Amino acid sequence: MGPHPAVAAIRLAVRRVLHDILNDHLTSRVRPGPQLVGAHPDRKPDRTAERPPSPLVLVACSGGADSMALASALAFEAPKLGVRAGGITVDHGLQPGSDLRADEVALRLRGLGLDPVESVAVTVGREGGPEAAARDARYAALDAAAERHGAAAVLLGHTRDDQAETVLLGLARGSGIRSLSGMAAVSGADGRYRRPFLQLDRQTARKACMVQSLPVWDDPHNADPAYTRSRLRHEGLPALEKALGKGVVEALARTAQLSRDDADALDAWARQAEASVRDAAGLLECAKLYALPPAVRRRILRRAAIEAGAPAGALFARHIEEVDRLITGWRGQGAINLPGRVVAQRQGGRLVIRQG
Amino acid sequence: MGPHPAVAAIRLAVRRVLHDILNDHLTSRVRPGPQLVGAHPDRKPDRTAERPPSPLVLVACSGGADSMALASALAFEAPKLGVRAGGITVDHGLQPGSDLRADEVALRLRGLGLDPVESVAVTVGREGGPEAAARDARYAALDAAAERHGAAAVLLGHTRDDQAETVLLGLARGSGIRSLSGMAAVSGADGRYRRPFLQLDRQTARKACMVQSLPVWDDPHNADPAYTRSRLRHEGLPALEKALGKGVVEALARTAQLSRDDADALDAWARQAEASVRDAAGLLECAKLYALPPAVRRRILRRAAIEAGAPAGALFARHIEEVDRLITGWRGQGAINLPGRVVAQRQGGRLVIRQG
Repeated sequence: MGPHPAVAAIRLAVRRVLHDILNDHLTSRVRPGPQLVGAHPDRKPDRTAERPPSPLVLVACSGGADSMALASALAFEAPKLGVRAGGITVDHGLQPGSDLRADEVALRLRGLGLDPVESVAVTVGREGGPEAAARDARYAALDAAAERHGAAAVLLGHTRDDQAETVLLGLARGSGIRSLSGMAAVSGADGRYRRPFLQLDRQTARKACMVQSLPVWDDPHNADPAYTRSRLRHEGLPALEKALGKGVVEALARTAQLSRDDADALDAWARQAEASVRDAAGLLECAKLYALPPAVRRRILRRAAIEAGAPAGALFARHIEEVDRLITGWRGQGAINLPGRVVAQRQGGRLVIRQG
Repeated sequence: MGPHPAVAAIRLAVRRVLHDILNDHLTSRVRPGPQLVGAHPDRKPDRTAERPPSPLVLVACSGGADSMALASALAFEAPKLGVRAGGITVDHGLQPGSDLRADEVALRLRGLGLDPVESVAVTVGREGGPEAAARDARYAALDAAAERHGAAAVLLGHTRDDQAETVLLGLARGSGIRSLSGMAAVSGADGRYRRPFLQLDRQTARKACMVQSLPVWDDPHNADPAYTRSRLRHEGLPALEKALGKGVVEALARTAQLSRDDADALDAWARQAEASVRDAAGLLECAKLYALPPAVRRRILRRAAIEAGAPAGALFARHIEEVDRLITGWRGQGAINLPGRVVAQRQGGRLVIRQG
């Protein structure tokens, strides 16, 4: 009898990602993009040939069901592929006793056979709100741990449900398809971070822990209605599912992937087009901008504003729309003030965007 | 003392659209796209010159608050711009007494000073479900009425709230950014349909009816939980607002506009790129497809499948992904069956998509 379907599912997801990591590791290629893997079977690396030392893959584990399921699957699959598997748990120091809990998670990870295992304490700042600050501290610690151990990759336990929530959070910003594209399956420096469970639902991860008798820890933040993501998870998404049907989470996750590809393509187009709309002095020519599709033109304007010093996070769609009207709705408007003391104005058929 | 702010808002929205319609009418240009209007003030038409006969603008009115507000604003603004204003109400014949109600709406429209006013009875079929069938019948009737009266435009009362609901309905399909782009401000043959209230919230329309003492009729369908849109309106969106904050409707409406522009640009790119990836015999070359960004490649594949006879409505993202793997994940797969008995297969470095 094979493993429980939930356990089979988490293992398959991890096995696929380990194959990708091995491919990258053996061919020393950096981040081929997941969709390219396996495209050229004739170029697949020969596993019997001399190879670099066995790569190390770390799992980032909070002790919650998603990342515990991930850790268990990594511990099971890695040895079969000649991959070394370790684990990192981050103590955010936000609750009393969090250090003890982190030690306990580390103990569980060692119990799964992972080695090395480390519990890393971080200091969470205040910048960008509590959720963003905790995330920043966590990724800095994971980056440092990956460097310290020479890890080929760090696995993250984000599920399809997390992805759906991230898409809705992006939707609430109303700032376009990039913010709808959620989390990438591969991200970070050199594609260090991998999310094997991005197509897997949270329920499967929970089930896999249960049938493997893995104790899991429920972060009280996840149920705290003070957090937007928690409200979304416990009220927003269920109501949306009730109205639209059970497929909403899957549809949101698919939207993320499609939006990401679309945003990538349009960014590439804007980068290419930008050179062709600048005059000899490097200034943006309004007539040439006018001839571009609005989607491409606005991306060029956004890039120009950021280049001039406007902070990306403070630059909203309405700012870019206003600058765009200097091109498409010209009636002698004055200079437009953008965040970061950046000023955009039209002068003699040119668009001048600079810090004032 | 000026009009109530809500009345001022609905009138301004209608005035802007009437200006656009007049511009198009006087310059005999067909559909310049709303963002281009006013771009070249020096080319604005001279209203004192000889002009074509005064254009007729019709409002489509159900008797509900949104379209009654629209009718009242049209009746107020049109004469000031030398535009003739009429109204059409459609009797869907779905409830007993709907004919009497349609007559009553027509009476109210005449009371506002609109002329011509017509009540048109339609027969709603069954194709695509009750909502789609009613919509099809309604637009067919509006098209016919516009032709019959030689109308320059038909105004529709969709508000920003309707737009937000439409975006969420599109999101639930998970089929990409085109389905997130909601309703267009200008649509239909020759840009016949205009939606002046697409940036206006429903509350403003209701308020405008109230302060003008306009009686409105609440369609019981709008509150019937059997309808997806009604569930979304009364449960899904409020829950989402509770989780994400009050700006959700506006963010969804902005997402619609940004997604529409992005989808248009990518469609244009795919149309252009398609010619360059076909060989002398007109077959799609896999190597050239492989080199395109995934977003562009998948749009070409989708177009090719539809051209071969696959019904657009039955062709989902997962179908296109499977065909895409013939390009990006080639390992000798067999032919792929698509809706409409269309078959896609890779043969000698070419992708052959045709009806089997």
